[in-house]
Amino acid sequence: MDLSKKIREVQDFPKEGINFKDITTLLQDKDAFQYMVNKLAQELEDLEIDIVVGPESRGFLVGAPVAYKIGAGFVPVRKPGKLPHETMRYEYQLEYGSDVLEIHKDAIQPGQKVAILDDLLATGGTVLATAKLIEALGGEVVSINFLIELAFLKGRDVLKSYHVKTLVSYDA
Amino acid sequence: MDLSKKIREVQDFPKEGINFKDITTLLQDKDAFQYMVNKLAQELEDLEIDIVVGPESRGFLVGAPVAYKIGAGFVPVRKPGKLPHETMRYEYQLEYGSDVLEIHKDAIQPGQKVAILDDLLATGGTVLATAKLIEALGGEVVSINFLIELAFLKGRDVLKSYHVKTLVSYDA
Repeated sequence: MDLSKKIREVQDFPKEGINFKDITTLLQDKDAFQYMVNKLAQELEDLEIDIVVGPESRGFLVGAPVAYKIGAGFVPVRKPGKLPHETMRYEYQLEYGSDVLEIHKDAIQPGQKVAILDDLLATGGTVLATAKLIEALGGEVVSINFLIELAFLKGRDVLKSYHVKTLVSYDA
Repeated sequence: MDLSKKIREVQDFPKEGINFKDITTLLQDKDAFQYMVNKLAQELEDLEIDIVVGPESRGFLVGAPVAYKIGAGFVPVRKPGKLPHETMRYEYQLEYGSDVLEIHKDAIQPGQKVAILDDLLATGGTVLATAKLIEALGGEVVSINFLIELAFLKGRDVLKSYHVKTLVSYDA
């Protein structure tokens, strides 16, 4: 199945000049959704993943079903103030300003094998921050898997010390 | 499995006097996560669900894997401004002020059988709004399923015209 045909492109969202990749058309198509989850799960076969981590909130849509399929636990990484228990925070730079992500301190046990799942690789900042949080808790980031890659933004360079795989790539 | 033992209670979150039900401890436990998804999916057996709808964002964590398990599509209901294409909006009253939810207008086809999945039934306002959006698009709300019910908040009264099921109930 060509998943790129199930992804809708929306011009000028969330702001002018951005060609937004809308995955809701894929998720609502039961066959495409099954196919996406199965493909992502297949790439994690034999890696003995303990935990899938997904950043808020489209990472939940991709990561939670994949965690279920491979028999792993799921851990959310969230914006500040959303997780109720003790958290570790990571602040990272954006083009303008900065952003903060949090993870529960007891979400990952030292030595656990972790896969990060998210919908889209753009500049890679969010997922790099997620990897740093996992490593700070003693987890091993074994794989980082995306549905979509915006290859022209070169997020792979930012994640070059990790094993990165994507299902659909856009060159422009 | 007693899922209530996997849910962490956090006192005074997000504000004083609230005993927050933290489902992250359940999700990160691979056995509990499998069990939860399988139980929720089991309750939807034989209902021929086309689409699972989950409200942002904990509804994504519960709804997306259940949609995968039962072979349905998944449709997110989100806060304003998050969905990129044409949406239908529903405004509903809270104790103080109001809130708005959105769904893509082409997310549900008339006559489709829909299940709403969310983590927690409190006053029922969010899920009632979600049901109204689905019905406005011509969908049939066949079942509403939660992991947790705060029975003392009587959300079932608000949803009394629907088929509602929950896995774990708290009386106080």
